Amino acid sequence: MQANTLPAASHDFDGFGAVPGIEVGRVFVNRQALARAQVHRPLQAGICGTGKRGAESIVVSGGYEDDQDDGGAIVYTGQGGRNPDTGLQVDDQELTRGNAALATSMATGIPVRVVRGWMGDRQHSPTTGYRYDGLFRVVDYWHETGRSNFRIWRYRLVQLESAEAPNGAPAGAVPTGGTTTAVEPTGQVAPTRTEAMVQRIVRSTRVANFVKRAHDFTCQVCGTQLRTPTGSYAEAAHIRGLGAPHNGPDVAGNVLCLCPNHHTLFDFGTLAIADDLTITDRATGADLGTLREAAGHHVDPAHLSYHRDHYSEGWKHAQD
Amino acid sequence: MQANTLPAASHDFDGFGAVPGIEVGRVFVNRQALARAQVHRPLQAGICGTGKRGAESIVVSGGYEDDQDDGGAIVYTGQGGRNPDTGLQVDDQELTRGNAALATSMATGIPVRVVRGWMGDRQHSPTTGYRYDGLFRVVDYWHETGRSNFRIWRYRLVQLESAEAPNGAPAGAVPTGGTTTAVEPTGQVAPTRTEAMVQRIVRSTRVANFVKRAHDFTCQVCGTQLRTPTGSYAEAAHIRGLGAPHNGPDVAGNVLCLCPNHHTLFDFGTLAIADDLTITDRATGADLGTLREAAGHHVDPAHLSYHRDHYSEGWKHAQD
Repeated sequence: MQANTLPAASHDFDGFGAVPGIEVGRVFVNRQALARAQVHRPLQAGICGTGKRGAESIVVSGGYEDDQDDGGAIVYTGQGGRNPDTGLQVDDQELTRGNAALATSMATGIPVRVVRGWMGDRQHSPTTGYRYDGLFRVVDYWHETGRSNFRIWRYRLVQLESAEAPNGAPAGAVPTGGTTTAVEPTGQVAPTRTEAMVQRIVRSTRVANFVKRAHDFTCQVCGTQLRTPTGSYAEAAHIRGLGAPHNGPDVAGNVLCLCPNHHTLFDFGTLAIADDLTITDRATGADLGTLREAAGHHVDPAHLSYHRDHYSEGWKHAQD
Repeated sequence: MQANTLPAASHDFDGFGAVPGIEVGRVFVNRQALARAQVHRPLQAGICGTGKRGAESIVVSGGYEDDQDDGGAIVYTGQGGRNPDTGLQVDDQELTRGNAALATSMATGIPVRVVRGWMGDRQHSPTTGYRYDGLFRVVDYWHETGRSNFRIWRYRLVQLESAEAPNGAPAGAVPTGGTTTAVEPTGQVAPTRTEAMVQRIVRSTRVANFVKRAHDFTCQVCGTQLRTPTGSYAEAAHIRGLGAPHNGPDVAGNVLCLCPNHHTLFDFGTLAIADDLTITDRATGADLGTLREAAGHHVDPAHLSYHRDHYSEGWKHAQD
């Protein structure tokens, strides 16, 4: 790691979360200024952190052609495997160092500081320098074959409280033909991005509840049924994630009914489910039997295959 | 239930989620108009729904002196036990009917339509009629002794995407001394409510991670350690919830390290932990042994007592 080049953390600041005295939106002239302010301590690496503790901060600077920046959500490509002279991807990326740090951040839930650089996405990046854009959570990570045919690790980060848009525009404002001043809404207004998202959540919960009821709220992996005072509790796990970048369909064949523990393990790629529905625990190699089926609910093997293709490699490279 | 008085749901609308064609913020002159629009179908009851399917909608109208309305978050009191003539609480509330419906909504995750009436909280309610204020999730429910010394059920509902404030004011806007038009932030700005919340989340994750590390990410109830490619995963469960209305402290003595399954069961009151740390499964009566302890982490029995006092009664009245 680059410990020698990192400014020491101040007494009250352990490196994670907001830096005291640095407000969202502050722009720094260069990487040196960013490092001095402890917003992002390394001078070159895009990720600051360790596999053990998680990531403190990242710089989104458009260095990877596969990066996507949607403002409140970012798909960020891991580090490594590039020719330092040409910037071309010449080898697979490994789930180590900064890449392991971002993976650990998903497990710990500790937010990551995001800095956008002037070379990044035109719509969401500053025109010069580096801007601190607040805290994001890592909500998903997976691997895929990049445009260069080498394996890259990718991370989906979502801004904490997306209401706080980094460029100062409140995310709840009506996007077009509206006003951002506080007025009582009258009559029909154009649906906002927020409303569209809420509609998607509701639609999704309907499919989810169909699948959970089909299995009477028992886990398709272990058969556990968690009981609450008014009924049972289970979770609906989308096999191929909805929306960008996975674009899985919101249909029952793309949903599993799982207990929270197996939902967690499935999302981290610890569980692999084969086309014949046999389940393997990748951490131990244990055979966990066969996925339980229910009348009226059939899992689509194409989605299981997608999940295996994008969530399995971490185990081959795990450094426990 | 009041099936005879309810308008039938239309073909495309199953009663849950947004009603097609009804935008957030629309005001209805009276309960009859609300019912005709299918926003809230019963003419008198504050909760529409069943224990089996969950709640479709509620009307927040200030009928209970214990209700609290913070705009994006509502603490809502259940129904029943009141003298219909005087409105005084004269008996305990039961976890049945509408109260069971709201409890089930927490388990299903299906959002609940919230309507605010003119009699409700002065700051957040319409001056006349009933206003549809969008979709909320039930994130917590518990019982307590109300001001009248009878048991009441309470529910915490949080607005989906709080960015969309129901009065049209974007929640991300600077609350005072600022402008809600889109401007590039310059220099120091007053911290917004959002920033305060983000700070709270970060502070909370530090305590949480201390507790999780103390237990090496193993569940204090069952000893399970969920493995991910870069380390182990556990959850930090606050015994007495942070913030209003529980106002639990963000200290290690108020946190448990649990697997997701036991976190879920603890939050629903299915697990009861006694002062001597013995654990009971209230659904089955089974003795689950003793809470595992770790050097440097001691659970405060006062918080366990608070949890038992507020999350246990559901099982006495469960109607399975």
